[in-house]
Amino acid sequence: MSLVDRLGEYRKFRARSAPLPTGSSSYTCSDFFKLQNPRDKPKALSWDHRTSLDSVNRKTSPLKASPYNHQRAMVSLGAARPASEYYPWESISMRCISNIPSQSNEHENNTSKFCSVSCSKGETEYDLGVALNYGHPIGSPQALRFITEHVEFIHNPPYADWESCLTCGSTSALEIALRLFCNRGDTVIVEDFTYPGTLSAIQAQGLQPLGVDVDGCGLVPEVLDRKLQNWTSCQGPKPFVLYMIPTGQNPTGITQSAARRREIYQVAEKHDLYILEDDPYYYLQMEGLHIDCMPSQEIKTFNTDAYLSQLPPSYLSLDISGRVLRLDSTSKILAPGLRCGWVTGCSQIIEKFASYSETGPISPSGPSQVMLYKLLDQTWGHQGFLEWLVSLSQKYRQRRDTLIKACLQHLPYDVCRWGVPDAGMFIRISVDASKHPGFVKTDIPSEISANLLIIEDRIFSHSQENGVLVSKGSWFTADRTSISTLFFRLTFVASPEESLVKGVEVFAQAVRSVLAK
Amino acid sequence: MSLVDRLGEYRKFRARSAPLPTGSSSYTCSDFFKLQNPRDKPKALSWDHRTSLDSVNRKTSPLKASPYNHQRAMVSLGAARPASEYYPWESISMRCISNIPSQSNEHENNTSKFCSVSCSKGETEYDLGVALNYGHPIGSPQALRFITEHVEFIHNPPYADWESCLTCGSTSALEIALRLFCNRGDTVIVEDFTYPGTLSAIQAQGLQPLGVDVDGCGLVPEVLDRKLQNWTSCQGPKPFVLYMIPTGQNPTGITQSAARRREIYQVAEKHDLYILEDDPYYYLQMEGLHIDCMPSQEIKTFNTDAYLSQLPPSYLSLDISGRVLRLDSTSKILAPGLRCGWVTGCSQIIEKFASYSETGPISPSGPSQVMLYKLLDQTWGHQGFLEWLVSLSQKYRQRRDTLIKACLQHLPYDVCRWGVPDAGMFIRISVDASKHPGFVKTDIPSEISANLLIIEDRIFSHSQENGVLVSKGSWFTADRTSISTLFFRLTFVASPEESLVKGVEVFAQAVRSVLAK
Repeated sequence: MSLVDRLGEYRKFRARSAPLPTGSSSYTCSDFFKLQNPRDKPKALSWDHRTSLDSVNRKTSPLKASPYNHQRAMVSLGAARPASEYYPWESISMRCISNIPSQSNEHENNTSKFCSVSCSKGETEYDLGVALNYGHPIGSPQALRFITEHVEFIHNPPYADWESCLTCGSTSALEIALRLFCNRGDTVIVEDFTYPGTLSAIQAQGLQPLGVDVDGCGLVPEVLDRKLQNWTSCQGPKPFVLYMIPTGQNPTGITQSAARRREIYQVAEKHDLYILEDDPYYYLQMEGLHIDCMPSQEIKTFNTDAYLSQLPPSYLSLDISGRVLRLDSTSKILAPGLRCGWVTGCSQIIEKFASYSETGPISPSGPSQVMLYKLLDQTWGHQGFLEWLVSLSQKYRQRRDTLIKACLQHLPYDVCRWGVPDAGMFIRISVDASKHPGFVKTDIPSEISANLLIIEDRIFSHSQENGVLVSKGSWFTADRTSISTLFFRLTFVASPEESLVKGVEVFAQAVRSVLAK
Repeated sequence: MSLVDRLGEYRKFRARSAPLPTGSSSYTCSDFFKLQNPRDKPKALSWDHRTSLDSVNRKTSPLKASPYNHQRAMVSLGAARPASEYYPWESISMRCISNIPSQSNEHENNTSKFCSVSCSKGETEYDLGVALNYGHPIGSPQALRFITEHVEFIHNPPYADWESCLTCGSTSALEIALRLFCNRGDTVIVEDFTYPGTLSAIQAQGLQPLGVDVDGCGLVPEVLDRKLQNWTSCQGPKPFVLYMIPTGQNPTGITQSAARRREIYQVAEKHDLYILEDDPYYYLQMEGLHIDCMPSQEIKTFNTDAYLSQLPPSYLSLDISGRVLRLDSTSKILAPGLRCGWVTGCSQIIEKFASYSETGPISPSGPSQVMLYKLLDQTWGHQGFLEWLVSLSQKYRQRRDTLIKACLQHLPYDVCRWGVPDAGMFIRISVDASKHPGFVKTDIPSEISANLLIIEDRIFSHSQENGVLVSKGSWFTADRTSISTLFFRLTFVASPEESLVKGVEVFAQAVRSVLAK
């Protein structure tokens, strides 16, 4: 079935579905929006044995749980939701990109076109009076419908009772997920170098990170298996939460191969692990987009199809047991300031997740949800959203190539090595510290580590003093006493494209200068 | 000094201050915006002995803590903040109330006028590209400046090192505050009936609520003192967090008198308590607004001045030691869907609070902050905001009066009692259950309680079946085994004004009908 036909199925399904509920904080769930009959798939396993002590204490607030809350034609003297006539805003409107510039020819005029979409009090599509009232932790029906369709279309989880839930971004979602599964003192398995925000979140909850080695295809399943196999109770409770950034990993830029994902999932099955799949860079795909030899009229479809076909299988899409909570974010593909993302997992976990949200951030901001809905659903549609992702990937690919070319031109080959990332935002530059004249030959890990940290700081500071910020590799590990490699993470997404080359030049100069001393 | 002159001081101070920083996630803090010289006040006490184990584990992410992060003219290959050229929104605009209708005469034409304000990428006032990027947990400089000025103007905390910090609403703020101060197993002091969301948050963190009796002026200081005085170690660690809703308390509607607040603060000083002042209804003041006999030209000023003069002293305004964290929310005065509020306390606590936000919701949504700034600062100004609060209070007063009149007309006097709340959204209707023919005379608390719960449920269900939702009193207590009074909470803010009377009528019928059986 063609892409257009597949997406057309959702339009048809919507047309024969009941209209979305219109009241404030309306109950909604992914089941209402899935195309596939849940009876065609097995149910997820039970995860009660994996949830934390705290998660048992989760109760739904009686005011919110009242089943009549959402019924219309009731006079509510109950929940204190201020009537929307007292909100000082009548409407909001957004000027947004309406057409996604074709990627057929980079020299063609590919200027974006813009349109205005608005949201008003009382409108049927998405009543601003409802958007500005309290929201349901699962998300508004408008936003959740689009997200559910998208998740089913892209990932099609192989079990029946999966659900999505909107989040206030993946940082918030990760904090909740850790609380949901872990008790103080527990160990969380991570890639040996990973996002410092995750390490902070782990440590802040009194948990320990356990790093597992990574090779060019991602986390090494044999090492993971061995660590779990050899786990002894004197090390504490056996870890069962596996946190990974499988695509365009932060900071290494590595994307796990499809085979690797399957192997890791097998280890997870064997040791009954629960996987947190943090995948904000999933949609930023930079390979397989070559278009040179295609006749121009087919290019657009081809682009989207090619893009879809090269998306790696997510853990969610491999998850026969319901042991994955997938974290998606709008931060890297739309705008971080929306503070909005979504998680997908089995319904028992999503229900707990929503319950945590209820005594926390409650729901993403109404204006953010309106912006998402008006852009994704009303302006772009699924096809347009995919085209946006293709277009964004193309732009990032161009930036990546600029940075890589600059590396080739400026970095000293004899001491620096780097890979070309297939996805994401990061390039890891490894530096051979043994070339440093002051490098002390030793077998004692803590001495190696201390030595590397000094050299790392000198290169970092030299670069910074000359106006270029890079990220230290040591920021990405919890254990600063056994660092054995020196590397820096460079991102190509933040600075204006024209300054990327200058940035690499200055960084290269810092490397040379420090290693020459 | 007149109100206009006092507010004029802020304008002058702004004019001679440095311009607001323009970069994304810029560091900001209240100190930049305070009128008063901090050297004129003593510093807060230290609160290290009151913070939780978890709060010790809080570290700032090295990527975010990098001091050069916010400097301009740097090439950043560091933090992965996507460049704003890749956000699909160019501008957002909001149609909002521009004039606050005068309250001088209810029969006058007091139709609201509207205006449009917008926020665009690259604008100097508030760059949408910055608003849609990652935000600083303290809040954007634009929003924080207004909030700091407002807090200083209204509360003027009597110690030097106070700070405000934006929050994702008070539910989120309360969750963070509890984590910041409490360890699992701790006891949190609350009013004997309180907001169920707070009880859920307390229980969800493995904490216990300890209810303290409330009389017509609020929580009874002698009871609080006695409970703390007689605390024995076998009851667990002595509680030190005191959570209160001092104004228009939920569910009782009671506003603590100024004298009562001072007495409670004295007990807090004596036992070294830390106070969480949850005050979402503070600005909804419904007394002291009588305007009949004033000459019309003075009315507007009089209204605002009268309004300000009747605001009760907040705990923040009495807090000589820095032992109060005040929670404010936009939910009840602007719109709940913004998911935005602010906390104010001493800088050491606010810094920890911001650090918790950093591994949680990070910051309120950018669009919400833009909406706040464009409305409060750019459209209304401080004077306009106060007029809005006066106007909103007037409208709620009218609704309250409608509900009270309906109570007078429909409720059976012999079994129902209620007070007229000075502030907030709630009326508590106490019902004399002993009038119920099936009421069993007993001295055993659990039997009384069980009996009351049955009658309560009957009245609730009868009302609900006839289309009117009220809130059960038992929802507001953690201990359902020792309930000694039967009451319902009615709010006048949610339903259309014209259905309030019908609502009370149906509820009254439910009371009569159940008690007659």
